[in-house]
Parts: sequence; C-alpha cells; structure tokens
Amino acid sequence: MAINHSSLEIQDHLHTFLDALESGTFDDVRRMLRGMSPAEIAKLIESSPPRERNLLWQLIDKDDEGEILQYLNEEIAAYFLRHRNTEDIISAVEGFDTDDFADLLQELPKTVMRRILESLDDQNRHRIETILSYADDTAGGLMNIDIITIRPDITLDVVLRYLRRHETLPDTTDNLHVVNRAGQFVGLLPLTKLLIKDPGMLVREAMDEAKAITAVTPAKEVAAMFEREDWVTAPVVDDNGVLLGRITIDDVVDVILEGADHSFMSMAGMDEYEDTFAPVLKTARRRAIWLGINLLTAFLASWVIGLFEGTLEKVVALAVLMPIVASMGGIAGSQTLTLVIRGMALGHVGSANARWLLTKEMAVGFLNGVTWSVVVGVVATIWFDDMMLGAVLSTAMIINMVVAALAGASLPMILQKIGIDPALSGSVILTTITDVVGFCSFLGLATIYYT
Amino acid sequence: MAINHSSLEIQDHLHTFLDALESGTFDDVRRMLRGMSPAEIAKLIESSPPRERNLLWQLIDKDDEGEILQYLNEEIAAYFLRHRNTEDIISAVEGFDTDDFADLLQELPKTVMRRILESLDDQNRHRIETILSYADDTAGGLMNIDIITIRPDITLDVVLRYLRRHETLPDTTDNLHVVNRAGQFVGLLPLTKLLIKDPGMLVREAMDEAKAITAVTPAKEVAAMFEREDWVTAPVVDDNGVLLGRITIDDVVDVILEGADHSFMSMAGMDEYEDTFAPVLKTARRRAIWLGINLLTAFLASWVIGLFEGTLEKVVALAVLMPIVASMGGIAGSQTLTLVIRGMALGHVGSANARWLLTKEMAVGFLNGVTWSVVVGVVATIWFDDMMLGAVLSTAMIINMVVAALAGASLPMILQKIGIDPALSGSVILTTITDVVGFCSFLGLATIYYT
Repeated sequence: MAINHSSLEIQDHLHTFLDALESGTFDDVRRMLRGMSPAEIAKLIESSPPRERNLLWQLIDKDDEGEILQYLNEEIAAYFLRHRNTEDIISAVEGFDTDDFADLLQELPKTVMRRILESLDDQNRHRIETILSYADDTAGGLMNIDIITIRPDITLDVVLRYLRRHETLPDTTDNLHVVNRAGQFVGLLPLTKLLIKDPGMLVREAMDEAKAITAVTPAKEVAAMFEREDWVTAPVVDDNGVLLGRITIDDVVDVILEGADHSFMSMAGMDEYEDTFAPVLKTARRRAIWLGINLLTAFLASWVIGLFEGTLEKVVALAVLMPIVASMGGIAGSQTLTLVIRGMALGHVGSANARWLLTKEMAVGFLNGVTWSVVVGVVATIWFDDMMLGAVLSTAMIINMVVAALAGASLPMILQKIGIDPALSGSVILTTITDVVGFCSFLGLATIYYT
Repeated sequence: MAINHSSLEIQDHLHTFLDALESGTFDDVRRMLRGMSPAEIAKLIESSPPRERNLLWQLIDKDDEGEILQYLNEEIAAYFLRHRNTEDIISAVEGFDTDDFADLLQELPKTVMRRILESLDDQNRHRIETILSYADDTAGGLMNIDIITIRPDITLDVVLRYLRRHETLPDTTDNLHVVNRAGQFVGLLPLTKLLIKDPGMLVREAMDEAKAITAVTPAKEVAAMFEREDWVTAPVVDDNGVLLGRITIDDVVDVILEGADHSFMSMAGMDEYEDTFAPVLKTARRRAIWLGINLLTAFLASWVIGLFEGTLEKVVALAVLMPIVASMGGIAGSQTLTLVIRGMALGHVGSANARWLLTKEMAVGFLNGVTWSVVVGVVATIWFDDMMLGAVLSTAMIINMVVAALAGASLPMILQKIGIDPALSGSVILTTITDVVGFCSFLGLATIYYT
C-alpha cells in the first residue's frame, strides 16, 4: 500500500523505456506502463526527449489517454492532439474540468480551437468563453466553474438531501458556496460543518463569512493569498460580487512553481517555458539573442579597457590583475541583486523598506570590500613586489564592491518601476556596471599613479 | 466581501507603520492592525526590519497573539517567545496543530524546549516526540497526527453519527482514514463520498484504495508526489503500514517554496534562510566566506593570465580583448548549468537522459560559438586592423563555448553524485573553468602565433 514514487523511479522507468527502444521489446514498455498511474505516465512523458516522447504516446492504451492528458502539461497535451479531428479531441478530453479544458484549447491551433467551440452546445460554449474572456494569468483565467451553490435560507438537512441526489461531486470540494437570489456570493459552508452541525440549523447560521477573489486579480496575488491564508479553495466573483467560480490549490501550486521557475531561469536569460528537450536548432536560436546582448556589454567593457592601452603597455601586471576587481564586484553585486529580487517576489521588499535595505547592503559591501581588499592588496604586493600596485588594487576593489551593492539593491526596483522584468535584465545590467566601474577604477587609478 | 490583499497593501501597511514610528502616533498603527487578518499581520511582521519587527510585536493585541503566531514562520515566532516562561509559551501556542507546535519547539533554545516537553502530559509528550523523532525534511517531520480514523466494517450511517458527536474536525479534513484492527492503513473515505453514497453501505465498499507515504520519505519526494497527483492531503505510515498521521497541502507548499528558494539563492552563494533584514555584521560575515572562495578562483585565473605575461607585453590588444572570451563562456555555461539544475529539481533530468542532454547542449554551444565568433572576429579585426588577432579570438571563443556547455551539463550530476549541492558549488566551479579555459585558449593561441 505504501509506494514511494520518486524522481529516481521516473529515471528507472526512463531507463527501461530507452533500453527497450534499443532492443525493440515494446512489450516490456507496455508492461511497465500498465503498472504506472496516469500521473506517473504523464511525468515520464514530460521527462523524455521529443522522439521518445512521441513513441511513448503511441504505446499508451487508448483507454488511458483521457486520464493521462489531464496530468500532462497543456502544451504537450495540445501537441499530441493537434492533428486529430474535432470529435476525437472532444472525446479525449471528456473527463477534463472546464478550466483545464479551456487551458488546453488555448494551446491548440486557432482553427482547431474555433471548430471545437462551434461544436459545443450553447451552455458549454458560454462557460468556456467566460473562462477564456479572462487573461490567463488572472483569477478568472485560473478558476473552475464547476461549483455547487446553495441558498442561505434553507436548513442543513435540505442541503444533505440535495447532495445525496448527486452521483459525484467536483474534485477538491471542501466547501459549498452560498449565494443570494442575485447570485452574489455571501458565504462558505464547509463540508465538515455540514457533517457536525445540527441538521435543523439554517445555512445562514452555519456558514462562514469569507473573502472572495475578484476575477481580475493577478495570478501572483492569488498565489500569495493562498499561501498566506493556507486556503485549499477560494471563490471568485465579478465586480458586482456575483459568484463566477472557484480556484483550487492545485492550480495555485502550478502558479507558484511557474513564478519560482521564472525567477530562476530569468537570471540566466531563459524563461520558464524553456523546454529542456527542445531540438538543437530551436534552442540555439533562443539562446543566441541573450548571448548577443551580453556580447555587446562585453565589448563595452573591452572598449573601457582600451581607453587605458597606454598604461597597460607600461605595466603588464595590470592586465594580470584587472579581472579580479571586475569579478569580485560582479559576485558581490549578484548576491545583493538575488536577495532583492527574491524579496520583491515574496512581497517582503518594496518602496517602504527599500532605502533601509540599500543602506544596509552598501554597508555590507563596504565592510567586505575593506576586508578582502586588504588580502588582495597584500597578495598583489608580494606577487609583483610593488606596494603601490597593491594599494591601487585594494582601493579599486572597495570602490567596486560599494558600487556593486548600490546597483544590486536599486536596479530591481528601478526596472520594475519602468516595467522591465528585473530578474531578466537585472543581471546583465549589473555585470555591465561592475565590469565598467571595476576596470575604470583599477586602470584609472593605475594611470594616475604610473604616468 | 471581495478584498484583494496584495504585496502593494503590505507595503502600504508598512509605510503607515514606519510613518507612525516617526510621528509617534501608535494609535494609527493599532487601528491599522485591528483591520488586518492574523495572516496579514504575520506577513507584515516578516516584511519589517528587525527593530520595527519587535515594535510591531509589542503593539499587537495579546488576544490575537496565538493566531498570529500560527501564521508566522517558526524562526520568528520562536524568537518572540524565547524569553517567556513555560506556562506562557504553552498558552500562546494553544491553538497550534501538533506538527506546527513541534516545528516551533525545534526553534526554541534547547533548555526551553526540554522544560516545555516535561510540562506536557504523557500522551501529548509522546505525540510530540513521535514527530520530533523524524528528521525535519521527511514525511514524518511534516506530518500532522490529528487524524480521524474509522474501521472498514461499519456502515456510513454509523460514521455520520460518529462525526456528529464531534465539536470540530481538524483543519483541511477531506478524507477519513480507514484502518484495520492492527492500526494499519487500508483506505480513504472522502467526505464527499460520505455525503452522497447510500448510508447503508459499508465503509469497506465505499472507500478508495490509496497510496500512503512512508515516514522516512524525503520532503522533496513528498512535494513531487503531491504536485504530480494533485493531492490535498496524504496519509503517512511506518514501515509496517501502521497509520501515523497525514500531510496537508499547506506544508507541502512550504516545502516547494523552500526548494525553489534554495535553488535560486544558492546560485549566488546564499541559502533560503537568508534573512533580508538581518543586521549588517551578521550579513557581512555570512557573505565573506563566499567572497573568499570566489577570490581564490579569481587569483587562479590571474595566475593563468600571468603565465602569458610575455605575450601580453608584446601585444597589448590581447589585454583589451581577453575578457570577452572568458565572459561569453561564463554566460553560455551558466545557461546550461541553470537548465540542468532546474531539470534535476523537477525530476526531468537524471542518469537516463543525461547523455542526450549533454550532447545537445554541446551542439548548441558549438552552433552559437561559431555564429558569434564570426561577429567577434570581424569586430576585433576591424578594431585592431589585425586579421590573425580576429582569428585567434574566434577560435578561442568556439573552444570556450563548447567547454562551457560540457561543464554546465555535466557538473550538476557529478556534484550530486559526490554529495555536494550542485546549485551552490556549480556556479563557482563553472566560472572557474570558463575563465581558465578562456584565458588559456585565447592567450595560448596568441602566444603560438605572435612568438
């Protein structure tokens, strides 16, 4: 009964699968698939390179397709379905929640999507279009409209009898939604309360007052609310308080993971949609732009160095030592930048505590700058038997560490204010600043001294 | 009814609070606090610098303390409680779930923790000690032992009457746990099924077979399971299948956030426990070690450059251009490193698809290396009116881009295999490799040509 499904097991499954491809015994693969849950098969598909991915899809039992599709991320699911005709797609997604169906639709080619919408009955089409009318990254785009509503002026006993007429209840139903005659949300009746309160009690007396989320709320705020208040589900209303649907925790977990993924990937110039298994050419093209931008900034740094060609010709030790100042500034600045970006993502850091943080980071930069500049100065002095060289190196390092802290602490908020993604652009701009200031200060001070 | 609590509002609250500190009108602050939920107040406390944090804690209504403590992260909660006597602490944490209480205990000074444990009655002490006996980052450390168990051979009707005798049910109760006479877990009875199935049915017939998690399962695997299977709660068993407790989604969300935080912060040499608002000296000390390590690698790169002093004296253009090769290698290698680390965290990347990924990344590195090396070679040729210089630069760049891809793709798995955190150490080692190879190849080829 107790089974651990770990990443290690996914890799085992993948090994079995890839070995089977070599030796051609698909029966082994089919046997392996039969022992896996739909969620695990979906994970295996997501972890396979493109060609193997397609092969796996062919080997799956047609009866299991529907369930597996529900667990697959919608881009891959849409890819598998894109060539099927409308009826086949509709039957494959039969078990989908309405919001997952809407997500999948948006990934299909526009013509396919239109044909599917036209084939739906009016009520279902209207429901899908309601969800599609909200942007992907808002509460309205995340919500599910399969909700159970009840009125406040009935007894719990009536509610129990009403529920008993259902064959099934929607997944993750933890609350019933109480609405008034105008359809406006007035409260939540947890199933747990329904089970322990006196059946003669009115819904109005038993229900909890609760916050609802307006449909236009950005997904990140929704995630922050869920995380802060420990919600499992939350109701979504329009601007008039009319209940539209509910958001469940699994969708929020996806938002949280995407947000974390975005921050992480952006620091290296990629985004959260980067497919680890995309083909070579597609990947090379995506990376080329980021490399091009960084190449520009590298040439800028080289140009700055070029201004001091004369000094470099005189004192070749400068060429040997100059990367130290630049790289230490970059490392220290990146720490501050990373900290501030994380703080902004968590909601910890903003206009109210920005100046405190800036001052503190610059103080830390100065302290560490002084500490390590002494070490660096001593090493350089001994290495090249030149005390002024050591002094120039030390001074330049302190300057660059303080500037790096200043840049790292202030860039994210400046960038956000002018509407640019701080995680993506922050690291490029920061290293450009620390390179330019690093080379300038070191070579500049050296020029003053040696010429 | 529909209220948006956004990060912007937290910053507004923080502004109000900090302004009140300036002007001294604490009544404004108390009024603001009274309008906020316990979860929001906890968030505000977490977002405040240390001195302001303490002040806020003084201004809070003593009656609200207990609820706010539940939402506060346990380090901060323990900090506020550390000087109180045992009875005060016990009464402050009265409303805590057993697992949250255990987490808090672990943050208190050892003497305080021991005194509290001794003051508990035997049953409660035994329950806490069960949780404490499991490592923090395992299923046993995450679980809550407040569960409702029922036997399989009773009717749903009996279950309903049993529940109705309770005053409250534990938070996030979505399933009842079915155990046999030996206390072993045999299945789950969802509350939804309880509400819609025929009351005369036996639990055994109505219940779902379900996977349980063994108590020693690492927290990351638990999070992966929840995320993959869309669970809200999951039962935890010992090695004999005896039911110990259950894990709820809110604890898993915390694990997921910590994992993402760890990856993000590690790339810059910090960890997820980094307090954005720690005092200057404490922060400077923590950063000093990382800076020291990077300084060592910077000196290594300088030493490599130093081997080519003769060539640098001859051709000063080399000093101007050499950072380009090193930095482009570092940028490209970091992309591959970031991608592979993310893939490993998501369970996508492992021994089965590692070689495929390595080959692909090296191909991408080669393609982009060739592309941009042409550009770089042309610019260098025009700038210094020296075609061989351009050729040397181009060649060195292609070499470094391929080496960077090789390092970025293989380092994470090598490091993990020898038990070192890939996110933390990977970036230092990678940039050391790209710097050394970059300077070596560029200056080495130049030496061959110019001397």
